[in-house]
Amino acid sequence: MAVNSPLPVAAELKPVNGIEIGFAEAGIKKPNRKDVLIMKLAPTATVAGVFTTNRFCAAPVQVSQANLAAAADSAGAAPIRALVVNTGNANAGTGESGLAKAQQTCAALAGLLGCNAQQILPFSTGVILEPLPVEKIVAALPAAIANLKQDNWFNAAEAIMTTDTQPKAVSRSVTIGGHAVTMTGISKGAGMIRPNMATMLGYLAFDARVAQPVLDELVRHAADHSFNCITIDGDTSTNDSFMLIATGAGTLEVNDAASPDYAALRDAVTGVSTNLAQQIIRDGEGATKFITITVEGGASVLECRKIAYSIAHSPLVKTAFFASDPNLGRILAAIGYAGVDDLDVGKLDLYLDDVWVAKNGGRNPDYQEADGQRVMKQSEITVRVTLGRGASAATVWTCDLSHDYVTINADYRS
Amino acid sequence: MAVNSPLPVAAELKPVNGIEIGFAEAGIKKPNRKDVLIMKLAPTATVAGVFTTNRFCAAPVQVSQANLAAAADSAGAAPIRALVVNTGNANAGTGESGLAKAQQTCAALAGLLGCNAQQILPFSTGVILEPLPVEKIVAALPAAIANLKQDNWFNAAEAIMTTDTQPKAVSRSVTIGGHAVTMTGISKGAGMIRPNMATMLGYLAFDARVAQPVLDELVRHAADHSFNCITIDGDTSTNDSFMLIATGAGTLEVNDAASPDYAALRDAVTGVSTNLAQQIIRDGEGATKFITITVEGGASVLECRKIAYSIAHSPLVKTAFFASDPNLGRILAAIGYAGVDDLDVGKLDLYLDDVWVAKNGGRNPDYQEADGQRVMKQSEITVRVTLGRGASAATVWTCDLSHDYVTINADYRS
Repeated sequence: MAVNSPLPVAAELKPVNGIEIGFAEAGIKKPNRKDVLIMKLAPTATVAGVFTTNRFCAAPVQVSQANLAAAADSAGAAPIRALVVNTGNANAGTGESGLAKAQQTCAALAGLLGCNAQQILPFSTGVILEPLPVEKIVAALPAAIANLKQDNWFNAAEAIMTTDTQPKAVSRSVTIGGHAVTMTGISKGAGMIRPNMATMLGYLAFDARVAQPVLDELVRHAADHSFNCITIDGDTSTNDSFMLIATGAGTLEVNDAASPDYAALRDAVTGVSTNLAQQIIRDGEGATKFITITVEGGASVLECRKIAYSIAHSPLVKTAFFASDPNLGRILAAIGYAGVDDLDVGKLDLYLDDVWVAKNGGRNPDYQEADGQRVMKQSEITVRVTLGRGASAATVWTCDLSHDYVTINADYRS
Repeated sequence: MAVNSPLPVAAELKPVNGIEIGFAEAGIKKPNRKDVLIMKLAPTATVAGVFTTNRFCAAPVQVSQANLAAAADSAGAAPIRALVVNTGNANAGTGESGLAKAQQTCAALAGLLGCNAQQILPFSTGVILEPLPVEKIVAALPAAIANLKQDNWFNAAEAIMTTDTQPKAVSRSVTIGGHAVTMTGISKGAGMIRPNMATMLGYLAFDARVAQPVLDELVRHAADHSFNCITIDGDTSTNDSFMLIATGAGTLEVNDAASPDYAALRDAVTGVSTNLAQQIIRDGEGATKFITITVEGGASVLECRKIAYSIAHSPLVKTAFFASDPNLGRILAAIGYAGVDDLDVGKLDLYLDDVWVAKNGGRNPDYQEADGQRVMKQSEITVRVTLGRGASAATVWTCDLSHDYVTINADYRS
């Protein structure tokens, strides 16, 4: 069940010049479902990405990081030409043979596209600690190439789904410096941080030309304000990746991160990224509520994020949201153990939407439980904490913890 | 449902000379249940404690910390004479008026016992952010005093229960340096760290005489190897407290932490504390499995604990245990995001009881899923991780995450 999240409409997903998409049914885990995706890029494209910080990062993550670095070093001589994604197997916890298989996938696709293996970025998502059936992926590549087309974004969103109950995608058209820019993105899974090791994957393409160092900065900014602000259960996958693709097929060119065009592009990309990230939360495993947690008045963004995540990860807070129970002391407790050692709780206020719950660290004398109850029954709720110790703020989006979360994760492999 | 945890037998709980126990039904949250407990100490007693690190620590925690310090400063002139515990209300998130009410409880009991208010330690457990009905507690004190007796440990264990499904208590008799020592303890709730803010409380008394600085060291050691090694859901309560009481009513005297008697006493106290802590996990909310997580071969105890807790807190790992699903890649992922930045996963091995699952960071070629399945079906399971980077180790005890956990915490206040 997804929280207030309408299915993306295929006809509303705009093709982006400079990127073609193909898919295939390789039968990696189950038959008769799209499980291999190819994105083929124009030679003008630049690509930048952020990846999981998990020390057990998957083989394809290691290969993609190395190949991105090689493409950047080539200064345009050997750009990334294609991305390949499989579901059904994460190729993580697979050691040296896993690395060899990720490279084998790249080599096979490179052979079919006429480039070298380093110009391919591989991605995998699914169960970890099991050998990748690389031969099935390689066998499916010609079929995926055969159906390459620009207008395949909805199929792409479906092809990367695992435990997702619905595909996640969005398009936006913007005008920057007089140039039309089309951007379309897809996502799947949940955190950088999330259930099932189902892996957060995000791909966002737009048709401007962006210099590599500028795109590197842009992807970091967009991730920090979108995919890095969501959490479902605090688990960080071995495979999380967010890739930003500037195809270079449009007329806008951005080579300077100090330019007004950069600022406009950054805000547009961040907006689309945030939409994709929030779609993940709305489709969180077992989610029945969409919760926004804002912490303000902090001495640093870091401490605001620590407190917001402490609230967002607390199983007690999450089960209270599921039950629509205004047991709001649990939120104060989660703030208290967030690890901000010099926090003066006597300066802290807590709001639930428009309801002032706690004042100066204690119950607001005017707070009525009926008001808290009213807000807790909503499917979208904002928790706002003010710390009274500075001007920094942070926001995190999360969902509740329901019976279905346990059911889904207890039954995942069966 | 408690995991393999027999109910303590009242007749097997040994009285400890120098401590008397009384209880009453104050009707704090619900009628007709013991909800106030008094422990009255001999004037020879010394008391030491460890408390929650939550910044929103409850009013009684603040008062107990201050009164313990005052008693220590008095050097025996004004020792702690009694402890008073209420359930049904945590007196946390209650600001200045909460502090005043905790002090009022102390003053009332001190008046009845003929000592001063600073010689009383107050404790509370229950819902937070709600005003303490102090008048009900004060009114119940005479009844609790009227039934004071040494042989009331089973009643004490019952009187401090909240969401516990069974009372938790244990006794041991040991001989140290030729002296008989009797120790009896009770506990309730779950973490230092745990569901429902239900609060971990532990009280352990024995009849030796122990100098205050030695007892301070002893309580820290015992807590670090018992109550600080358990976790159910990672939530740290506002009220967690573990109190160690040396009544001084026996013949053993320990004034030197370097003595052999201290070492023997420390091991005995730690053993009883560990038993009490493990009873909490076995009765964890919704628990169906008792899991021991041991991390060995670390460069420091701290990094071993980080990894053990990362596994123990992962909702994915916990739901896999609930489902008896050997989806063991989830354990590797939890190790990977534990925050040990220079961890070389290529040196890491993973065992499930006697089954060697992962070798050098990848699947052990000899591992058979049927073997993992066999262990996962057990109600007691040991996860052992070897890091291959040093000689340090740590152990954490936890339970699984079940449907009942969600049910219990979603319905707690109803």
